[in-house]
Amino acid sequence: MEDNQNIQFQLTDALIEQVELFIELKNDKALRQLLEEFHYADIAEILDEVDLEDAMYVIKLLDSETTSDVLMELDEDNREKVLKNLSAKEIAEEIEELDTDDAADIIAELPENRQAEVISKIEDEDHKAEIKELLAYDEDTAGGLMAKELVKVYETWTVAGCLRRIRGQAQNVSRVHSIYVVDKEEKLVGRLSLKDLITAKSEQKIAELSNSNVDYVYVEEDVEDVAKIMQKYDLEAIPVVDQDKTLLGRITIDDIVDVIREEADKDYQLAAGISQDVEADDSILQLTKARLPWLVLGLFGGLGSVFIMKGFEDIMATVPNLFFYTPLIAAMAGNVGVQSSAIIVQGLANDNVKGSLFNRLIKEVGLSLINGFALALLVILFGYFIGQDTTESVAIAVSMMSVIVVAALVGTFVPIILDKRGIDPAIATGPFITTSNDILGIYLFFIIAGQIIGF
Amino acid sequence: MEDNQNIQFQLTDALIEQVELFIELKNDKALRQLLEEFHYADIAEILDEVDLEDAMYVIKLLDSETTSDVLMELDEDNREKVLKNLSAKEIAEEIEELDTDDAADIIAELPENRQAEVISKIEDEDHKAEIKELLAYDEDTAGGLMAKELVKVYETWTVAGCLRRIRGQAQNVSRVHSIYVVDKEEKLVGRLSLKDLITAKSEQKIAELSNSNVDYVYVEEDVEDVAKIMQKYDLEAIPVVDQDKTLLGRITIDDIVDVIREEADKDYQLAAGISQDVEADDSILQLTKARLPWLVLGLFGGLGSVFIMKGFEDIMATVPNLFFYTPLIAAMAGNVGVQSSAIIVQGLANDNVKGSLFNRLIKEVGLSLINGFALALLVILFGYFIGQDTTESVAIAVSMMSVIVVAALVGTFVPIILDKRGIDPAIATGPFITTSNDILGIYLFFIIAGQIIGF
Repeated sequence: MEDNQNIQFQLTDALIEQVELFIELKNDKALRQLLEEFHYADIAEILDEVDLEDAMYVIKLLDSETTSDVLMELDEDNREKVLKNLSAKEIAEEIEELDTDDAADIIAELPENRQAEVISKIEDEDHKAEIKELLAYDEDTAGGLMAKELVKVYETWTVAGCLRRIRGQAQNVSRVHSIYVVDKEEKLVGRLSLKDLITAKSEQKIAELSNSNVDYVYVEEDVEDVAKIMQKYDLEAIPVVDQDKTLLGRITIDDIVDVIREEADKDYQLAAGISQDVEADDSILQLTKARLPWLVLGLFGGLGSVFIMKGFEDIMATVPNLFFYTPLIAAMAGNVGVQSSAIIVQGLANDNVKGSLFNRLIKEVGLSLINGFALALLVILFGYFIGQDTTESVAIAVSMMSVIVVAALVGTFVPIILDKRGIDPAIATGPFITTSNDILGIYLFFIIAGQIIGF
Repeated sequence: MEDNQNIQFQLTDALIEQVELFIELKNDKALRQLLEEFHYADIAEILDEVDLEDAMYVIKLLDSETTSDVLMELDEDNREKVLKNLSAKEIAEEIEELDTDDAADIIAELPENRQAEVISKIEDEDHKAEIKELLAYDEDTAGGLMAKELVKVYETWTVAGCLRRIRGQAQNVSRVHSIYVVDKEEKLVGRLSLKDLITAKSEQKIAELSNSNVDYVYVEEDVEDVAKIMQKYDLEAIPVVDQDKTLLGRITIDDIVDVIREEADKDYQLAAGISQDVEADDSILQLTKARLPWLVLGLFGGLGSVFIMKGFEDIMATVPNLFFYTPLIAAMAGNVGVQSSAIIVQGLANDNVKGSLFNRLIKEVGLSLINGFALALLVILFGYFIGQDTTESVAIAVSMMSVIVVAALVGTFVPIILDKRGIDPAIATGPFITTSNDILGIYLFFIIAGQIIGF
């Protein structure tokens, strides 16, 4: 990485200044020459950094073949601003250059009143009809993710006829993963690869070459399930069909990579107490909206523990130590709960939480007893070291251990129960589990310590 | 999902019992027939559920073409056990069937003393040499991820000659993404697609068709950077070269999907306070090893706050309320810290933390002042509602607000500083940030409240 030449594009301040200078000088030729060298994803990175006016200048300068791809790669907030500054006609021109799935995504991002206007300006009638079809599907389903572009052959064709027609179809398909074989009713009956085709004899019938063992998903399948299927079977593309097995479209692995990343980001943000879809560079208002609700939840939890502790105010004079340990108890309850819930949520996401609930209960209790015991010993040792009353140390240690066991059980079973009820278990990680475990933990701590010390 | 026929394989208890029964009856024919229907990934799922003896029975029954793929899909712990029960000769037979990247991964998982033995039993000398080459690369680099299987053509060939030879090479390559064009010194000079080839005239020279604008990575590039490049440029395969641009291998998107998932899982687990690489179904000992260290860290933090609070024991009689609010303060400091660090860590991972540190400082202070102010109002309202002394309420609210600002700054800048020093910023999420913010928060809380109330 350090010294050797790095092929990865590096966005530098010098480059941005160069672009801004050419725009200021209206030196279109130099600007076009400079940008031509870059991949559209790199141009998008540059445009994400300059101000809107400059970005619009570049977008109007470059041809729509390039800018349509640049648009797709822009940061969502910036894309929204750029689209707002383009006329319906200009957006339609960009859309003509895009694959149907990207085209539908762009249109779906527009305000509703502009959508129909933009669609009406698309000149290619086939493209328009396909985009309209895609817009009808829920964005979280296979239909919402698929593209209409694919290479399709009829089982009755010969290899030679097939190659001839594929040369036509393939022009519209940026990457040919599989060739899908359909019967005369357009139903999916098999697949073959370009490799099969070029290694076959030209007079062979497609039906002979076609592999009928073809994976597919239904158009209403949830995108997360599509992602699981494609990952499990290492697929790079999968055809999408309706209930009659009519071939409707295909989903490619690059779209799935985005689904996987978004899913992982969402779970991570929920665990960290952030409503989804914010980035470090979003506005303060957006960030506040994403963060404040979770903090209010935490505040209510904290106020709950204020109440609980007020209830034990009487013993403050006799065993003040208990009060000094409450942040520790809350922290342990929270940490253990987060650990347990994170493991379960990840296990549920990867489909590897198996076996009976009872076995899981036994295991979680065993695990938390081991952890709790080790931590309790440390607490007793600490108490001995600072010359704390032994009964109090033992009471604190034992009740902490109980809190740890309960926190682990809450952390394990709340996500499982949510999942069984069809609710995303990831909401039970982070602030939700920490807050409830804080209150529960502090309450249990005083009750159990009270039993041992006797108050 | 509910009622319609689901094409996704569903592992049922009935199926597992069926498999176990056939094994018990030694009904090899029925067993083979049953398993033949399933994809190797499904067979692996079955074998992950039955006991080791039964799994070994199935592995010895099926041919190595199937079992080699099954092996790759097994849970890592189970694969280790299965490999332990196979002879060096048997492992070598499985490896003969695998692509070089998978073969090298399997060998790397073996205990060192068995590696050489297994390698010596591989009969195909070319395969053996390639695997040995791959084993020499660090597993976190492009070299450790790449496969030697690829389709390579010389720029001087004609389309017809090329197609003829590709028919040979393509047999060993499960998916042809791109055809790489090299010069006579084996240096990468371009690429072309099968589509380009079949749409070209047969007498054309490869050099005319070849696209010299080919992305590539160096063999020592970090896999995470390879993942970023492939995602950014939507690549499905990328060639790997040495410093002289000699073509060494290629990396495909399915391997990158695994890298992305592992990376996301690792960050998630660090945020939840779990050392990486544990699953819900791991043993209690493994889970304890992954969880206890973080809990001990949290315990030390908690004991730290015990010390701090003991230092303020004198004011317990006069302002007991402050002590009731410590879990709330710790929770807020922890939650705010986790939110800030999670946003920054995700931003760093996605390369979208840009701009100056000073601007980020201003923004984070502004953001936490807004959140803190809203929460402080709620605390004052709560105090009013429960009839708490107003000065105390204000003191608590104001010091909580200060704690929130400091916690946000710690959560934001610790990951940035770690990242600048080349340390994985993800370690600064979760228990690490919560624990330090807990201690710091409680200390600040008493100091600032003391200033306002006057003690």
